[in-house]
Amino acid sequence: MSTIKERLLQAIAPDVARIDQAMKEDLQNSTQGCDPLLIEVLSYGIFNGGKRLRPLLVLLAAKLVGISENRMSDEIVLQLAIAFEYLHGATLYHDDVIDQADMRRGKPSVVKKYGEISAILGGDFLHSRSMFLVGSTAGSEALNVFCHATNAMVDGEFLQLRNARNYNLSEEDYFAAVRGKTALLIAATCEIGAMAGGATVAERKALTAYGKGIGIAFQIVDDLLDYQGDTASTGKAVGNDFQEGKMTLPVILALNKAGDSEKMRLLSLLSDADLKGKGFVEAYALIEKNDGFSASRKQAELIVGESLTGLEIFTGGNATMARNTLHTLAEYVLVRRK
Amino acid sequence: MSTIKERLLQAIAPDVARIDQAMKEDLQNSTQGCDPLLIEVLSYGIFNGGKRLRPLLVLLAAKLVGISENRMSDEIVLQLAIAFEYLHGATLYHDDVIDQADMRRGKPSVVKKYGEISAILGGDFLHSRSMFLVGSTAGSEALNVFCHATNAMVDGEFLQLRNARNYNLSEEDYFAAVRGKTALLIAATCEIGAMAGGATVAERKALTAYGKGIGIAFQIVDDLLDYQGDTASTGKAVGNDFQEGKMTLPVILALNKAGDSEKMRLLSLLSDADLKGKGFVEAYALIEKNDGFSASRKQAELIVGESLTGLEIFTGGNATMARNTLHTLAEYVLVRRK
Repeated sequence: MSTIKERLLQAIAPDVARIDQAMKEDLQNSTQGCDPLLIEVLSYGIFNGGKRLRPLLVLLAAKLVGISENRMSDEIVLQLAIAFEYLHGATLYHDDVIDQADMRRGKPSVVKKYGEISAILGGDFLHSRSMFLVGSTAGSEALNVFCHATNAMVDGEFLQLRNARNYNLSEEDYFAAVRGKTALLIAATCEIGAMAGGATVAERKALTAYGKGIGIAFQIVDDLLDYQGDTASTGKAVGNDFQEGKMTLPVILALNKAGDSEKMRLLSLLSDADLKGKGFVEAYALIEKNDGFSASRKQAELIVGESLTGLEIFTGGNATMARNTLHTLAEYVLVRRK
Repeated sequence: MSTIKERLLQAIAPDVARIDQAMKEDLQNSTQGCDPLLIEVLSYGIFNGGKRLRPLLVLLAAKLVGISENRMSDEIVLQLAIAFEYLHGATLYHDDVIDQADMRRGKPSVVKKYGEISAILGGDFLHSRSMFLVGSTAGSEALNVFCHATNAMVDGEFLQLRNARNYNLSEEDYFAAVRGKTALLIAATCEIGAMAGGATVAERKALTAYGKGIGIAFQIVDDLLDYQGDTASTGKAVGNDFQEGKMTLPVILALNKAGDSEKMRLLSLLSDADLKGKGFVEAYALIEKNDGFSASRKQAELIVGESLTGLEIFTGGNATMARNTLHTLAEYVLVRRK
């Protein structure tokens, strides 16, 4: 009996290899004659052990509906898939500049290793290449979806900036930021994959909802791991969000449930510079006591469950393998430890 | 008798107004429901007194060839025009982060006023919107030209990084960096304008060459103004390039001509931290004595002259006004004081 992670890795291995190969070839073509440092910066940031979640979703969505005569060629679907990995890469280059993050996936971040100029410009190159791939292969409707998700991501970051240190943050505000920052882009991978597969309106809708669901769940699990994760496996320090006083879902749900005195205390721990250094254990206990962790996990499970129910419209024999992988992937989002 | 600048401003005023109006409307549409701070950051950076050179060139190129049946609608040409201003804006947002520049066109830069996060993400938003406008209105060939120019710009910055403090820099290396950093994008404005106007192959080639020429001349004049400009009109301190030890064209040409002892002295002034503070006047004199300024200006004039000769294929009566404006614009590039 293998673990969810083992099953997932086995199912996606051939696609991950295709994605990496396609990016190698595409970067080689698109950087012909370019400065050697630019080429190195791109290669370092892209081939650094990423999970390839976004391009995989494009391929899986296209496979799931890919019995239509309207489907695009495998070659084009692969180009669309890697466009999402480039966009994701561009975001990470820029995020690490913004957050002054030294590490990314256990290695020095691009900005740490090559400096700010390389990280900003390298991100711009990838961003530009990603939009070119979508616009030149899949037409203006796909470009619209892609661009909408990109801009929602930027807007989500601004919303998060505004939310930071808003200790009255509602569940609604939290979800609005998560949708923009994470979920709409993952939804777009599935939507564009569906379009590439020649989906009907209902199929496209179901896949978009699936992507949005696992995107939200992904972020909730991120919030949980920030309290409950293990640095050795996440590669990130536990308690980052707490140190920054971030209003993540476990905190919001605990505050909703807590009585006045516990509420005041939890807010003080989050917002008071003097308390933060030593307050993590106490804050953890308060969140746990008020079901912040369990209620967050339950929400993530509900959302994933709904997303999977939506995929039941895909019944064809051809679709079985892709649907199984999308199921496993959704389960993995819930159980992942990093 | 009016000055070149006055004639130019008069000729372009209606188009500049159309461009600004189109950007206002487009930003209003594309940021509907977005965070108020994002909207403010975009508006501050875009409506800050820019010369609108790039979008103007798109409109003028399209007008010059616009007697073909294949021409795109005025609406689409305008969308393409503003795409270039957005891309230019995105570059400035990011450049000012990279250079830690406090001022832009006499006002606080976006990064100075709103901080690094806003400047990086605001630039990303504009970049994304620009590619969307090109991809969704003009199709994949135009998107290819646009993306190629964007990536050449990134590559040109990397080349410039590598060139910095290479005191053996050849004229050839200098021009390679200028082509990437500045000229290819200005060439792309004219090329996409030509495509939008339904140009023949020869017309498209002539306009692309015109754009490339004035782009290179623009950069050479920038280099000259850094030594010979007047801070009150340029809005920038004179001697920046010298302080940074940059190998600009006047320096390169002076070094080519100077005898060994003057060459050594000029290089010391540029590279020696102790000498730089007080060495500007001496360096200026050495460059002037070895014809660095006059030879650079002559090169810029030659390049502009060739670009204008190429436009002689446009002879139709409809084209006269647009061609006159392109002439005036090229002359202005040479005489501008800021």
